[in-house]
Amino acid sequence: MPDKVLDDISHRRYNPLNGSWLLVSPHRTKRPWQGQQEAPSKTKLPSYDPKCYLCPGNQRAQGDSNPQYQNAFAFVNDYSAVKEEQQEYKPEIKEDDVASLLLQAQPATGRCYVLTFSSKHDTTLADMSAKEILPVIQTWSRIYASHLSPSHPLKAEAAHVLETIPANADGEVDPPKKQLRYMQIFENKGAAMGCSNPHPHCQIWTTSTLPEEPGKEMAQMTKYKAEHGRHLLQDYAKLEAEKGERVVWQNDAFLVVCPWWAVWPFEVLVIAKRHVRALIDLTDDERLQFAEAIQEVTRRYDNLFETNFPYSSGLHQAPLDCTEEEAEASWFHMHFYPPLLRSATVRKFLVGYEMLGEPQRDITPEQAAARLRDCGGELYRKSLE
Amino acid sequence: MPDKVLDDISHRRYNPLNGSWLLVSPHRTKRPWQGQQEAPSKTKLPSYDPKCYLCPGNQRAQGDSNPQYQNAFAFVNDYSAVKEEQQEYKPEIKEDDVASLLLQAQPATGRCYVLTFSSKHDTTLADMSAKEILPVIQTWSRIYASHLSPSHPLKAEAAHVLETIPANADGEVDPPKKQLRYMQIFENKGAAMGCSNPHPHCQIWTTSTLPEEPGKEMAQMTKYKAEHGRHLLQDYAKLEAEKGERVVWQNDAFLVVCPWWAVWPFEVLVIAKRHVRALIDLTDDERLQFAEAIQEVTRRYDNLFETNFPYSSGLHQAPLDCTEEEAEASWFHMHFYPPLLRSATVRKFLVGYEMLGEPQRDITPEQAAARLRDCGGELYRKSLE
Ligand SMILES: O=P(O)(O)O[C@H]1O[C@H](CO)[C@@H](O)[C@H](O)[C@H]1O
Ligand SMILES: O=P(O)(O)O[C@H]1O[C@H](CO)[C@@H](O)[C@H](O)[C@H]1O
Repeated sequence: MPDKVLDDISHRRYNPLNGSWLLVSPHRTKRPWQGQQEAPSKTKLPSYDPKCYLCPGNQRAQGDSNPQYQNAFAFVNDYSAVKEEQQEYKPEIKEDDVASLLLQAQPATGRCYVLTFSSKHDTTLADMSAKEILPVIQTWSRIYASHLSPSHPLKAEAAHVLETIPANADGEVDPPKKQLRYMQIFENKGAAMGCSNPHPHCQIWTTSTLPEEPGKEMAQMTKYKAEHGRHLLQDYAKLEAEKGERVVWQNDAFLVVCPWWAVWPFEVLVIAKRHVRALIDLTDDERLQFAEAIQEVTRRYDNLFETNFPYSSGLHQAPLDCTEEEAEASWFHMHFYPPLLRSATVRKFLVGYEMLGEPQRDITPEQAAARLRDCGGELYRKSLE
Repeated sequence: MPDKVLDDISHRRYNPLNGSWLLVSPHRTKRPWQGQQEAPSKTKLPSYDPKCYLCPGNQRAQGDSNPQYQNAFAFVNDYSAVKEEQQEYKPEIKEDDVASLLLQAQPATGRCYVLTFSSKHDTTLADMSAKEILPVIQTWSRIYASHLSPSHPLKAEAAHVLETIPANADGEVDPPKKQLRYMQIFENKGAAMGCSNPHPHCQIWTTSTLPEEPGKEMAQMTKYKAEHGRHLLQDYAKLEAEKGERVVWQNDAFLVVCPWWAVWPFEVLVIAKRHVRALIDLTDDERLQFAEAIQEVTRRYDNLFETNFPYSSGLHQAPLDCTEEEAEASWFHMHFYPPLLRSATVRKFLVGYEMLGEPQRDITPEQAAARLRDCGGELYRKSLE
């Protein structure tokens, strides 16, 4: 392999999906670590916690009570980062007025949801089977479908989803009156990733504007398509499946890789193998295959250091309100950004050089993929029970 | 003030210096926090720690011993992220070969230094006077000057610095044989920012390539100059000095603001008021004024929550090897990125939405600036002694 030299030398890699470079220093894991240690979550949680604002039947901060739900339960975040109604703000932009060049702002409205994965306080996606994860994906699909703009190119797919996936009463949310632009579904897992409640859940922030990250990806994917006539992630998934060295796992519908350009030590990208533009393009069978992929990633993560592995993860797909071209350029994928580097207690900090210079990583994605390939098998906790 | 509405509504702000947007949710600080608590550094440190690899006279990991230095002592990092010598790597780029489009890498060489701020293990920049910080700035200036390319537009300024600033034997480092492109000076302070040794020090990573962040700033500043005939940070400093609401502190040479586009809760930008392209453009008096600015920022940080405030900080300036246009476009400034949000133990996490969507902040930069303006005065620890 001509690139074997990259295991030993410092180099930069290019992320074609967001258009930026990062620094890779494979030899650097040898340095001793005397810094902060993460506290591995040793305490056994109860399956129901009367103080948890996400457990079934409990009261939330602003007074509402949760229903006795089964698995996926959705509600509007009591402390949303964006709201539907707020005072109007129309900044005046004056040509060549310094303030309107350098102090630019625009209003942001939207709605934020919280969605549980299970009624059990003490479970995680890694503990759940693909079949148990499926209702979460079904609920995501229905919420995405119900929030789609009436003129969306995928309107027919949305209607199909709403007709064929049975509604889960606890996971239903009516869309806001004003059409929104983008839906970001993400999970923060573990205290190290700013999660303040271990009850398994994700968040869905739906905004009037297209956020920076999916915006950059959209621009890069559109450009690639225009220049090469093929989709960036289509070419990439095919290439990685052939090379194999960064592949963690795959089934017919999804490829799981530590991407060439991974920043976080065990960063993973789950890529649809065919042109899936959004959740609502998935067939029944593909939804189950997606659940399998999520199960494989999260279980392998926990097995790697035999710990409840922290991460942030999220889906990127077609905007809720978008043009024909934008829908066509979109390619469904899921990112996992986990901070642990060497053990359950030693994480990678993306700090000084990373913030001021550029991201820097200490092991290669090929090394990370090899380790994740090797830790399939039963969830380590199962045999401890 | 027409923008007062921004204190209450969610909005996005534009960062013209790096060309990206962030989400501001001023109302969001009201949410309760039950997540991870930072451990405030309560333990009193000794002024000399026999186990510290940075204290004078001690032995380092790879066997070298530190001299009995006074303040600024520089040495090559024993675990550098980049090295001067390594195997060659010349990727073959083939037109329309998918692998060379999607698996791009380039070699990165360079040299990393560690530089102490003081011989005292238990001090920080906040504890030091401007006069005590000055030798650090002098050493930065000499190291930058000695690493400048022979054809650099600021070559005369470099020569002047090397002639007029007295050498500090412990802070002298010979440049590598191969000319490097950029010098990133940065500090990680506190365990929360991945710092593994409290002995006051910074790092200097010098690389063969221009990193992403200064690269983006260079592009934005060059574009602004071409479009408006003035410097972006010149216009910005003038505008902020007039408006006042984001100004934390200033002297004749430097303006300290919580920038309009701050991502971190108490993020600060120190901007040169006149066109300083790099450290070596500073006069003797301006170097002292820069030391004053650093003193003011770090002391106010510590006073804010009466704690040893963690942050990452760093300088941006002209590349070591650059064209006339790049030197002209450069405008010397220093960033401070501190994570604390509400108290010594509650930080802001830039996680799920921030990684997958875009950065999100909970208080406005105007609110942050007002609080930092109000906590000048003696370092809180002084009166506790
Ligand atoms: O070099 P240090 O202090 O050991 O390491 C720290 O700073 C580096 C530069 O920002 C980071 O890459 C590391 O993750 C961090 O722990
Ligand atoms: O909404 P939560 O879980 O309270 O908050 C967490 O996730 C948010 C979205 O990534 C972040 O903005 C917060 O800093 C983090 O603590």
